[in-house]
Amino acid sequence: MKTLSDCVTAHIPAMQRRRRDLHHFAESGWVEFRTATLVAEELHRLGYQLALGRAVIDADARMGLPSEAVLAQQEQRALAQGALPQWLPSFSGGFCGIVATLDTGRPGPVMAFRVDMDALDQNESSAADHLPTREGFASCNAGMMHACAHDGHTTIGLTLASVLKEWAHQLSGTIKLIFQPAEEGVRGAKAMVAAGVVDDVDLFTAIHLGTGVPAGEIVCGSDSFLATTKLDVTFTGVGAHAGGNPEQGRNALLAAAQATLALHTLPQHSGGVARVNVGVLQAGTGRNVVPDCALMKVETRGVNNQVNDDIYQQAQRVIAGAAAMYGVDHAITLMGGARSCTPSPAWVAFIHQQAEALGLFRSVVDTKAQAAGSEDATYMMERVQQRGGQASYVIFGCDLAAGHHNARFDFDETVMATAVQTLATLALNQAQFGGAR
Amino acid sequence: MKTLSDCVTAHIPAMQRRRRDLHHFAESGWVEFRTATLVAEELHRLGYQLALGRAVIDADARMGLPSEAVLAQQEQRALAQGALPQWLPSFSGGFCGIVATLDTGRPGPVMAFRVDMDALDQNESSAADHLPTREGFASCNAGMMHACAHDGHTTIGLTLASVLKEWAHQLSGTIKLIFQPAEEGVRGAKAMVAAGVVDDVDLFTAIHLGTGVPAGEIVCGSDSFLATTKLDVTFTGVGAHAGGNPEQGRNALLAAAQATLALHTLPQHSGGVARVNVGVLQAGTGRNVVPDCALMKVETRGVNNQVNDDIYQQAQRVIAGAAAMYGVDHAITLMGGARSCTPSPAWVAFIHQQAEALGLFRSVVDTKAQAAGSEDATYMMERVQQRGGQASYVIFGCDLAAGHHNARFDFDETVMATAVQTLATLALNQAQFGGAR
Amino acid sequence: MKTLSDCVTAHIPAMQRRRRDLHHFAESGWVEFRTATLVAEELHRLGYQLALGRAVIDADARMGLPSEAVLAQQEQRALAQGALPQWLPSFSGGFCGIVATLDTGRPGPVMAFRVDMDALDQNESSAADHLPTREGFASCNAGMMHACAHDGHTTIGLTLASVLKEWAHQLSGTIKLIFQPAEEGVRGAKAMVAAGVVDDVDLFTAIHLGTGVPAGEIVCGSDSFLATTKLDVTFTGVGAHAGGNPEQGRNALLAAAQATLALHTLPQHSGGVARVNVGVLQAGTGRNVVPDCALMKVETRGVNNQVNDDIYQQAQRVIAGAAAMYGVDHAITLMGGARSCTPSPAWVAFIHQQAEALGLFRSVVDTKAQAAGSEDATYMMERVQQRGGQASYVIFGCDLAAGHHNARFDFDETVMATAVQTLATLALNQAQFGGAR
Amino acid sequence: MKTLSDCVTAHIPAMQRRRRDLHHFAESGWVEFRTATLVAEELHRLGYQLALGRAVIDADARMGLPSEAVLAQQEQRALAQGALPQWLPSFSGGFCGIVATLDTGRPGPVMAFRVDMDALDQNESSAADHLPTREGFASCNAGMMHACAHDGHTTIGLTLASVLKEWAHQLSGTIKLIFQPAEEGVRGAKAMVAAGVVDDVDLFTAIHLGTGVPAGEIVCGSDSFLATTKLDVTFTGVGAHAGGNPEQGRNALLAAAQATLALHTLPQHSGGVARVNVGVLQAGTGRNVVPDCALMKVETRGVNNQVNDDIYQQAQRVIAGAAAMYGVDHAITLMGGARSCTPSPAWVAFIHQQAEALGLFRSVVDTKAQAAGSEDATYMMERVQQRGGQASYVIFGCDLAAGHHNARFDFDETVMATAVQTLATLALNQAQFGGAR
Repeated sequence: MKTLSDCVTAHIPAMQRRRRDLHHFAESGWVEFRTATLVAEELHRLGYQLALGRAVIDADARMGLPSEAVLAQQEQRALAQGALPQWLPSFSGGFCGIVATLDTGRPGPVMAFRVDMDALDQNESSAADHLPTREGFASCNAGMMHACAHDGHTTIGLTLASVLKEWAHQLSGTIKLIFQPAEEGVRGAKAMVAAGVVDDVDLFTAIHLGTGVPAGEIVCGSDSFLATTKLDVTFTGVGAHAGGNPEQGRNALLAAAQATLALHTLPQHSGGVARVNVGVLQAGTGRNVVPDCALMKVETRGVNNQVNDDIYQQAQRVIAGAAAMYGVDHAITLMGGARSCTPSPAWVAFIHQQAEALGLFRSVVDTKAQAAGSEDATYMMERVQQRGGQASYVIFGCDLAAGHHNARFDFDETVMATAVQTLATLALNQAQFGGAR
Repeated sequence: MKTLSDCVTAHIPAMQRRRRDLHHFAESGWVEFRTATLVAEELHRLGYQLALGRAVIDADARMGLPSEAVLAQQEQRALAQGALPQWLPSFSGGFCGIVATLDTGRPGPVMAFRVDMDALDQNESSAADHLPTREGFASCNAGMMHACAHDGHTTIGLTLASVLKEWAHQLSGTIKLIFQPAEEGVRGAKAMVAAGVVDDVDLFTAIHLGTGVPAGEIVCGSDSFLATTKLDVTFTGVGAHAGGNPEQGRNALLAAAQATLALHTLPQHSGGVARVNVGVLQAGTGRNVVPDCALMKVETRGVNNQVNDDIYQQAQRVIAGAAAMYGVDHAITLMGGARSCTPSPAWVAFIHQQAEALGLFRSVVDTKAQAAGSEDATYMMERVQQRGGQASYVIFGCDLAAGHHNARFDFDETVMATAVQTLATLALNQAQFGGAR
Repeated sequence: MKTLSDCVTAHIPAMQRRRRDLHHFAESGWVEFRTATLVAEELHRLGYQLALGRAVIDADARMGLPSEAVLAQQEQRALAQGALPQWLPSFSGGFCGIVATLDTGRPGPVMAFRVDMDALDQNESSAADHLPTREGFASCNAGMMHACAHDGHTTIGLTLASVLKEWAHQLSGTIKLIFQPAEEGVRGAKAMVAAGVVDDVDLFTAIHLGTGVPAGEIVCGSDSFLATTKLDVTFTGVGAHAGGNPEQGRNALLAAAQATLALHTLPQHSGGVARVNVGVLQAGTGRNVVPDCALMKVETRGVNNQVNDDIYQQAQRVIAGAAAMYGVDHAITLMGGARSCTPSPAWVAFIHQQAEALGLFRSVVDTKAQAAGSEDATYMMERVQQRGGQASYVIFGCDLAAGHHNARFDFDETVMATAVQTLATLALNQAQFGGAR
Repeated sequence: MKTLSDCVTAHIPAMQRRRRDLHHFAESGWVEFRTATLVAEELHRLGYQLALGRAVIDADARMGLPSEAVLAQQEQRALAQGALPQWLPSFSGGFCGIVATLDTGRPGPVMAFRVDMDALDQNESSAADHLPTREGFASCNAGMMHACAHDGHTTIGLTLASVLKEWAHQLSGTIKLIFQPAEEGVRGAKAMVAAGVVDDVDLFTAIHLGTGVPAGEIVCGSDSFLATTKLDVTFTGVGAHAGGNPEQGRNALLAAAQATLALHTLPQHSGGVARVNVGVLQAGTGRNVVPDCALMKVETRGVNNQVNDDIYQQAQRVIAGAAAMYGVDHAITLMGGARSCTPSPAWVAFIHQQAEALGLFRSVVDTKAQAAGSEDATYMMERVQQRGGQASYVIFGCDLAAGHHNARFDFDETVMATAVQTLATLALNQAQFGGAR
């Protein structure tokens, strides 16, 4: 009889082709038009029930959306690169999310797997020794690169869909596969949560490849994420000739400079790690003009939601006060956000046990060290847990050519089969889980 | 027949005694208790009609008043130093102002002369070659010194009272002699104006000795004063252990630091000289405590009222905004203020002509160079002019041992007779003035 | 006999054509390649002796030069727009200056007139009621516009060259016509001075149209210029992940924010008007990265060279200190500069007398009110005066469609004939000048 | 046979008297003159070998010493309050440290116990329900109060000396009792370490009462201390009249304001807790004078020495840079310091076992939660460990009337006997310790 392992192994060549195609046509957050149409087509072909676009993404809860002009232009770009026209209308305008459901007809919990699809806003290395370049699948889109393995995640999600379909007769309950846009900048998950896509989920698992975890190791319940808020701040003052009538100006740059310093005085907190960064400041129009505009790109972080919320609340106060100091207007736009997370112990333990039983890993651990980055699957985990479900975040270690967000990033593709087999195993053995609910 | 000059000359020994007595018992602003009682006694003896204390000083318009404890203590100090008990109640509580009126019974304008009585908050030099020390009349009050010649001004005012009384048969209209407290820090004049003491004045003259004008020169209409506002600012936050619970604090010092920097960014103005100074900042209670308090002593200045008002208005905005940034409370207390001034041209011209005719001066000029300091007689001048009167500010040049506000300041006492003779001449020849009204 | 007026009048149609051609092909500072070749061709045709490019511009003294790539690209642009290939090599690389000399062969002083040729870095209005748009001569170069009348100045210079040639038999001494690049941003004059172009000049006159002076008025010796220094400041730190390893970064933005505030605390000066402006600040690369770079565009100004130099010296100290605070590197690049000026009284008086005699002006004045802007002809004036010559700066009032540096700026072209006739008169009557040297 | 418990119990009345006497005559850091003479007298009476004053305190390594005038005045105060004249010379000038040694004559390790003797710089509550007030032993010294239980620590040390003497026949090795001055502000321990007092110590134990640990609990190896550096910073500029000649000043307050903000931007560190506090800022002399002086009281902290050192190093850079920005001088004076600590596991385990065996504690734990405060016994622990010894920090929980450093602080005196019995037990059973060396 064909084992699960045999089944997954058979997919390996297709997985590589899929991943390399997605890598070549890397698409940044909210403009994953080509990717989304290919994902939809494949899931439809497999017979999943699909919810698309506005049905799974709350328009108003989206953060950090590009301008309409960029969205329209990118949609054209995607079409030219092979986006499937029949699916495109569902995603038009920045709604590139898909939720595929498989109702087994047998009683059981709703089990969800979440992958993300977007690339980073950066150029890929053209060095000859960079494998994607050498093999001809480096990104063809300037300023967009899969340097965080989301091409792998999407491929794993699609392959998992295929494998589970093949083994559907042995599944019970409901399977939900969530394909999320705009994880980079932690912009997309909140809008899917707001659309209710995880409200019925009992067992939730998000995944990531790499992140410093060594090849052969699986982290069953990573809690190493900082809560974070991303905000753009604009100050709008009044320009004036700096030599002739300086008192007629209202100086947006001075407000921004005060705010920048003050924001960086905030993160001392007994609750643990607290962070503020004003990463970008752009202000003024000319050397001899009192600056009438300033833009700050800011983020706050905290070891947990409370710390981050404290810092963010103070940040808002600082920004408003700085504007008041110089009589300038200000606006704060949320550009992204993520929560800290505490994976559900019972579900982590189950994953741990299943991973050990699989025999695919040299090392099975529950958590990894020190928090630093952020991840918006945490919004989904939080919602699932608030509604009584179990949630975890699983990392599959693998060899990397260079670190995440590096222009020479690349990962060892063999990890994808390992991931598919592990996740399929969780679904197939779910009935053994005796966890809460 | 005895000339005016003969008459004034006869007063010279008494003037020196008077000035040296006042110098020895120097009294700072609002606590001129001894001085005021002596002034009142002398004016009463001469037969002037007196208005005292609360009658000439609006309680609520006083600025920069010492605490009640200090006022009470200084009143006792004054008594011990010879303040006259019969007059003291009129001045008790910080009301050391006197207006002496001489109604000649003959028709004519109301003509006012204003002198100030307070010392500076500083110690006098004890150097052997400092004349007041050598001659034994240096200040006996620690932290109080007549380093700005107000002892001379008061002496001139009293001597003028005496001389005018002697020549009263040749005067017409009404003479008002105004003895003001608390000119240092520009704190006292506004309250006398608010009490209405110059509301009926047609011809107003304030005086000063020295100020860099050379001996033998008279400035007939000095306009070299900056408008100014003096303010104390307090920020009140919340203390917290800086190591243990920093986020529980609300940092008053950080608010003050931001405000200090921002205040100093304000004074660029096309209207001319603009100034801000945060002269003193005191904040915090302990090294390891988030500072819950801060006090700033601030002043704004402007070449004219408009510029000063612009800067002061912006300063208030800056202070409120800085408090808001850190979520701390703030309070602004007015501690002093003065106006810019434009002496009335006709009255300046009359003074100029009379001074030339006197033959006492090597040089008679209308104005002196560049504005820098401030003077609150400007409040009186402004009010007189607003009500249709004429006003000027006259400076009598003289040799100085050291600059004003210096611990070794001293002035050549001979200038006092010159001043008395000049002011008496203005009164006696007033009928020749053909100016407005 | 044909009068000077007749002669100038005959040029009016050509002046309009010339000005409109220059306006249409507006060229920004240091890339006036087309303009310079046309100017050279015309002056050569008229028989002037020419000194071009590197002969009149000291390479190292140029400030605010575009990159070599931009220079090369703009040279190609100019060629495509009709720059004359035979003259272009002289100006290649950012050397678009011309000095044309006419030696009359008769004894007499060296008399120089200076005009500037560059446009502003801004777009011109495309509004239908904007005359250059309506008449089809609005700028065809994006980001370049003659919004400061330098097209008029160049036209005046060329027409003056033509007229003086016609009247050469009545001239004595030597005539120098100086066509300067890059006056905007006060970048070009210093390099021409460094090349020695005014070292032999006895009588120097720079001109400007408009600047708020009403039509029909001439200002014979404008002294309303602030000394100024333009500087670009870069801070170079070390980037780091703001969440993960903030302490590994060296924050260039914080250094720039501190410097910005501190720079704005500098301009309080007893010497008079002092200004600092940080007009532009651009820092950082991403929201979640400790900023490793910052660029500030700064200017200082002063009512005179001393005040400006004081402020600039302090500014350098502030910038170095701010860099030291955060352990980042910094670099200061001079981008422009100008001096204050005091037109030579005798030469101003001569211009005044000649202007009155001409009968072309409703109003002839020596100076205009309050300084505000800056002008680098002041470098030439200073050098001429240092070497014993006389110098002045003349403004021809005219009606403007909108203020200088406005996208709808336009001037009444009739003023150009007035200017030519006035300047030619100065040259023709120069022998009447009894001034110094 | 008399048990250890019986022996300690017999001391209870004397302990209360001793503690209350020390509490009544509370003496701040470096001026513990009365306390030190009483301690010396008692230890001498018991027969300990004493090393005093300069022999146990390195003069140059002392931090945060009061002025000589204050030291002299406090010595007189102590004499008037019963300091013993025969011992006073040893401590004169700020050297109030005592090391008492008991050589048992039997082989064995050197075992040291350290207690501290100084009070806090604060007033004690005079509320009637404050027990020390009600019982008449509240501090009689204004601005000095034992609000941190050091009176208890000293009493424990003296009683331990007495008890160990009684049981000396059962001891082996050497006992050192260290009585340290100036622990508040973490000023004294470093100087004792520099004098070599722990260089020969094999087993080191420091103690504290309270600190939030509940009554009945003992913490055997508290590691909850932040490394810290205390520094005073002075900026010295140049004063000037703020209205008249602002450019002649060099503004020390602006330098301090910049430094204050910048210091508070430092503490983001991946190594863990990092802190900066500018707790006090005092600057300027008068409202209208450019401030020529500023004093900042600053502290840095870190979860470990590395983090604190990183922050302190950056703080020095910030301070020097801020001074450079405004052309003012600066000086940094170390006022205190402490290290983080890692109690030696073997020694902690031994203490744990002994404490459990004693049966005096409801709860025996190794560590307590979150670091917040600092303690300079850590310098001694570090030195002992560097030289191969074992060190720990033991906390005896007890009921408190109010928190440490509160004006109503008081502790339940019964804990003292518990502490003496525990420490004596460690000494008596030391031979059972099989730890390193």
